Amino acid sequence: MRAVMFDETGISFRENIPQPVCRENEVLVRVLLAGLCETDLQLVQGYMGFHGILGHEFVGVAETGRFAGQRVVGEINCSCGSCETCRQGLATHCPHRTVLGILNHDGAFADYIAIPEANLHRVPDEISTQAAVFTEPLAAAFQIPAQIPLSKEMQVVVLGDGRLGNLCAQVIRLSGATVSVVGKHRRKLDLLEKLGIATELLENLSPDRCADMVVDCTGSPSGLPTACQIIKPRGTIVLKTTVAGTPEMTLAPLVIDEITVVGSRCGPFDRAVSALENAEVEVLPLIDHRLPLSAALEAFEIARTTDTLKILLHVNDP
Amino acid sequence: MRAVMFDETGISFRENIPQPVCRENEVLVRVLLAGLCETDLQLVQGYMGFHGILGHEFVGVAETGRFAGQRVVGEINCSCGSCETCRQGLATHCPHRTVLGILNHDGAFADYIAIPEANLHRVPDEISTQAAVFTEPLAAAFQIPAQIPLSKEMQVVVLGDGRLGNLCAQVIRLSGATVSVVGKHRRKLDLLEKLGIATELLENLSPDRCADMVVDCTGSPSGLPTACQIIKPRGTIVLKTTVAGTPEMTLAPLVIDEITVVGSRCGPFDRAVSALENAEVEVLPLIDHRLPLSAALEAFEIARTTDTLKILLHVNDP
Ligand SMILES: [Zn+2]
Ligand SMILES: [Zn+2]
Ligand SMILES: [Zn+2]
Ligand SMILES: [Zn+2]
Repeated sequence: MRAVMFDETGISFRENIPQPVCRENEVLVRVLLAGLCETDLQLVQGYMGFHGILGHEFVGVAETGRFAGQRVVGEINCSCGSCETCRQGLATHCPHRTVLGILNHDGAFADYIAIPEANLHRVPDEISTQAAVFTEPLAAAFQIPAQIPLSKEMQVVVLGDGRLGNLCAQVIRLSGATVSVVGKHRRKLDLLEKLGIATELLENLSPDRCADMVVDCTGSPSGLPTACQIIKPRGTIVLKTTVAGTPEMTLAPLVIDEITVVGSRCGPFDRAVSALENAEVEVLPLIDHRLPLSAALEAFEIARTTDTLKILLHVNDP
Repeated sequence: MRAVMFDETGISFRENIPQPVCRENEVLVRVLLAGLCETDLQLVQGYMGFHGILGHEFVGVAETGRFAGQRVVGEINCSCGSCETCRQGLATHCPHRTVLGILNHDGAFADYIAIPEANLHRVPDEISTQAAVFTEPLAAAFQIPAQIPLSKEMQVVVLGDGRLGNLCAQVIRLSGATVSVVGKHRRKLDLLEKLGIATELLENLSPDRCADMVVDCTGSPSGLPTACQIIKPRGTIVLKTTVAGTPEMTLAPLVIDEITVVGSRCGPFDRAVSALENAEVEVLPLIDHRLPLSAALEAFEIARTTDTLKILLHVNDP
């Protein structure tokens, strides 16, 4: 089959990769569409030391199992199900887990992917394949209200106008909280304004310290220090993106202002699917380009430019 | 009056300092006993840029106001009481606040201190003056259960066997949680063992990742990274000490493991007073030395050695 590999020689598109062999509890899924995300860009710079088939955001059609013939999306953490962490309901944190296209598990930039059946969610007919490919990052955004109670009275600032910042802002708005997005890119901020979300250019940001919550979606070492400048005392900063390297930062403001910092990662797929089904969020305006799988290297080049939001890889027709 | 000053020339004991003049709402307190703490050691190294009379942990006798003639302890944040932060009940975070011996307010290493009457708490007769001087750091320890719900099922690790680590461990134990203290000093750990609290030498610490909560009382840039090594996924790390400088640290574990980091500062004096009154905690074993105010420079020297717990300055007899 065809697949996009990453190893010590870099990224490559290959046509002679053996189809994955399903382990126990896994089913085979024929991939239709896949999305590139910030994590993919970091992986190919060495993050996590991943070697294998890239890709963790996808829509496909199950070939086997109880969803056979149906469109599915898949949770990315493949847990053991039997360790103490799993039994405590923290399966996404299973120390033995593999992660699709990220950790010891081949990913979705390929004709086929093998994935635990328990990870699959059927895509309702109301959701287009193009929209469904946003389920994984949208679920990550829904992890915020799953971890932290939001309310109408809250002022929330999202730092970062990229893919994830956009989705987080849309999700937070659903709670009734007042949300604004701070970013560097007029075009991306304009897209948010069209959705009715207030925006501000980073260069105009005043350190007013009036945010009850700040969500850092910058993927930059400067995100947390910026968040500290605008968060209220006793406020909550949500770290939504991993930052490579070891940024130098002063921790004293966290103590003095009694700030809470919450790391937030993967989220509830069922909530993301229902939000797409009921058109609670708009994801299609985020798509900049749609390239064939064979053009994956070009897709990575385009995704690296700061002006893009979402790049999709078309893998197979339905 | 006599006072211990810090300015660009360093620390000095002086005998010709004018008695403080009370502002509106302030009363005069004659200081009996004062405690040195980690913050004092940091202040004399330039932290906060403080110049003035040092000292924020004290017991005294009110000279004026409704507590006149009675022993009192005092909260250290002097808030404006009228700004939005104060009106929201966050007076300890008032942006206009002064802080005794720390920020724009002369402190307690002196014969007299001027302090808002609202900050004072009467010391019940059941509490000795020596024990009462621990009210401020003990209140800081009680801020942990005030911010984060503790329960019997929790495994809590306190990093740091110093003054604050000791008090935090004693306070956390009151909740019924299982608590252990990790430190570098056998003598200090032995003191905790005598109180019935489990301890471990840092060099023997295994990165088991089984702590539901870790309280960082190390005052060291290595505290947070160590905490990340032993905290469970979705666990809570409490930052109890400010660290000078800008430690380099990787934030990725916070996101990947969905850790919550909570900054924690000053706490409820009333709870600390009642804990001392009812002998819920033991503070007297923490006292290493008791020196006269005139020996403050020597007291700072002794406090800087890693083997000491609490150094008190005797200022006046009752
Ligand atoms: Zn992703
Ligand atoms: Zn497991
Ligand atoms: Zn102190
Ligand atoms: Zn105020």
